[in-house]
Amino acid sequence: MKIAFLGLGIMGRPMAANLAKAGNEVTVWNRTSGKDVPGAKKASTPAEAAEGADVVWMCVADTKAVEQVLFGANGVEQVLRPGVIVVDSSTILPTASKEFANRVRGKGADFVDAPITGSKIGAEQGTLVFIVGGSDESVKKLEPLFAVMGKQFIRVGEQGLGEAAKIGMNLMIALIYEGFAEALTLTTKLGVPREKLVELVQASMIRSGVTDYKAPFVLKKDYSPNFPLRLMHKDIHLMLDAAKAAGVRLPGLEKVEEVYAESVKAGWKDLDFAATVGVIEKMSGLS
Amino acid sequence: MKIAFLGLGIMGRPMAANLAKAGNEVTVWNRTSGKDVPGAKKASTPAEAAEGADVVWMCVADTKAVEQVLFGANGVEQVLRPGVIVVDSSTILPTASKEFANRVRGKGADFVDAPITGSKIGAEQGTLVFIVGGSDESVKKLEPLFAVMGKQFIRVGEQGLGEAAKIGMNLMIALIYEGFAEALTLTTKLGVPREKLVELVQASMIRSGVTDYKAPFVLKKDYSPNFPLRLMHKDIHLMLDAAKAAGVRLPGLEKVEEVYAESVKAGWKDLDFAATVGVIEKMSGLS
Repeated sequence: MKIAFLGLGIMGRPMAANLAKAGNEVTVWNRTSGKDVPGAKKASTPAEAAEGADVVWMCVADTKAVEQVLFGANGVEQVLRPGVIVVDSSTILPTASKEFANRVRGKGADFVDAPITGSKIGAEQGTLVFIVGGSDESVKKLEPLFAVMGKQFIRVGEQGLGEAAKIGMNLMIALIYEGFAEALTLTTKLGVPREKLVELVQASMIRSGVTDYKAPFVLKKDYSPNFPLRLMHKDIHLMLDAAKAAGVRLPGLEKVEEVYAESVKAGWKDLDFAATVGVIEKMSGLS
Repeated sequence: MKIAFLGLGIMGRPMAANLAKAGNEVTVWNRTSGKDVPGAKKASTPAEAAEGADVVWMCVADTKAVEQVLFGANGVEQVLRPGVIVVDSSTILPTASKEFANRVRGKGADFVDAPITGSKIGAEQGTLVFIVGGSDESVKKLEPLFAVMGKQFIRVGEQGLGEAAKIGMNLMIALIYEGFAEALTLTTKLGVPREKLVELVQASMIRSGVTDYKAPFVLKKDYSPNFPLRLMHKDIHLMLDAAKAAGVRLPGLEKVEEVYAESVKAGWKDLDFAATVGVIEKMSGLS
């Protein structure tokens, strides 16, 4: 298939590489140039990359970036034609995703939101899970591409619902990690060896991929970014914005947002979101 | 071994039954009478049950109940002698546990705190995990008993540290569930089918024993008690009390406590703690 891949960040780059490796004709574009993807051509604008493509796949930073890539100067819109499927793997506001879908469909093309769950390693190994909103017909056409980049895709419903489910997933990740951070701080202060707490977590019903992945780094106080704090903070604002618009109250998350805001103030925005434990430690005289 | 088992609640009763089934000579006592354990004798006071026992095992409701059983009228203290090991599987304040340990050791007996993790089913099937604080020597003597009731025991350190680690574990469970409750409410309001969200959770790194166990009941709105809300609320107060004494701040948990307080006000204290999702739903106009 002829695929334009737009956005070569932590997740996008290995996703594009997997598409190319599987024999697709891939053209990539990134906001800042200089990033290569083995087996792929490079374009200098989104429109240039999307020209003649069957599928235009996006994986960019936020709602504004998606809008820019689609409808800004040299945006994808300029070359949209019937039959093209635009796929968005960015995590953005569900209502904005729906609006973008409508604009794309107005040009006769189709739109599928397919945000992802899984780490950088998952993107590299092709074991992502796609959370999909879109028409049955287009989703079916995308199946071989999902299979190349992921281990599973779950169609949640129509356009926008992939994003809605995705922000719900990230909400859970934020609260699972907050629980780990608070428990680790409390038990450390009470004299429990940190390794023992992690051993217990891993032997119990609390164990999840979140602690599997984060705990070893936290024990080493290694906060090199896998899921950067600033992106989780952005996602938390998406959740709170979506909640406000829908009349939903999220008391736990509202409090966790404050912890992220403190972390940003402390200068940790480019570290992994695991660094937020530092705010709890600081509040508790542990650092 | 000759064992007194004190406290026949949701967890205690199957634990005592497993000890008896394994061939130990078990005498049980419960605050309210009328509860039988197959293969065990019944006593009418803690002291009567503990008379002549090698091991006195407690699994009662709270810090006050442990104090009463040990040091109250007809308490275990009256028959304590050197060589006896008192084991406490209740979840109580770590500092109180340490104090009780000192009083018991003052009589020449030993004290081990061994709170448990795992559900009612875990207690029945003998697959609990014990979180242990106490001397190496006594913990070694208890090994065959841990093996009968559980699949694993992890010695965290000296007396009181089992309780410290345990409240950390329950803190994580409370925040994991809060995350699930908030995500479910948000995504439901945004139009995501509830079963789809659960399917996604179970296919992702978010999956844990907490959602494995709770999600199917939540989808059916079946809040029959496995871990009663009032007990989790009690544990949350233990965490906050321990945190206050240790100078630790737990911002997420403080907010979750408010959700539990609202749930108690709503009359749900004897339901499972999963019922707390009702508070988020109510705040969000979903019920």
